[in-house]
Amino acid sequence: MAVPELDAKEIDQLLADHPDWSLARDGKAITRTFQFKDFSEAWGFMSRVALQAEAQDHHPEWFNVYAKVEVTLTTHDAGSNGGLSHRDAKLARAIDAL
Amino acid sequence: MAVPELDAKEIDQLLADHPDWSLARDGKAITRTFQFKDFSEAWGFMSRVALQAEAQDHHPEWFNVYAKVEVTLTTHDAGSNGGLSHRDAKLARAIDAL
Repeated sequence: MAVPELDAKEIDQLLADHPDWSLARDGKAITRTFQFKDFSEAWGFMSRVALQAEAQDHHPEWFNVYAKVEVTLTTHDAGSNGGLSHRDAKLARAIDAL
Repeated sequence: MAVPELDAKEIDQLLADHPDWSLARDGKAITRTFQFKDFSEAWGFMSRVALQAEAQDHHPEWFNVYAKVEVTLTTHDAGSNGGLSHRDAKLARAIDAL
């Protein structure tokens, strides 16, 4: 089921609301890198994000090595070939609130 | 603290023992991709690997998107610039046993 893509103004608002996130993939995604003290702390964060993601039925793409977590948010069902949607805004808000 | 790198013969043995893993990064790492039914199942797997990793004090580099998990094992303290060590063999064995 197609999800509406955010328009340019909505994307500007998203970045203004979440200044720690950056546009990626030609504006089709946002990304943020988190640095923790150690793996245990990084994993604790990931576990909390996983619960949120499952509850929202919208999941991150993420990479972890030891204390570092790189999170990328995009909506595969948005636009003709993936893009940003309100689902990404919602998950970014939940992650920033952790 | 430097960890001894596996020699060519030991790497051959590692790949023979773990045929689902492939050499990566010019022989400095091994990688395996796991495909699950959904995020919940992928996350369950990752949680079990996380416990093993923490117990072994040796952690994977990994990427997850929804039901897919790409695991890369390498030892940053091996050789002069990272490489494969017995730690990777041990963690691969634990992961394969899950």
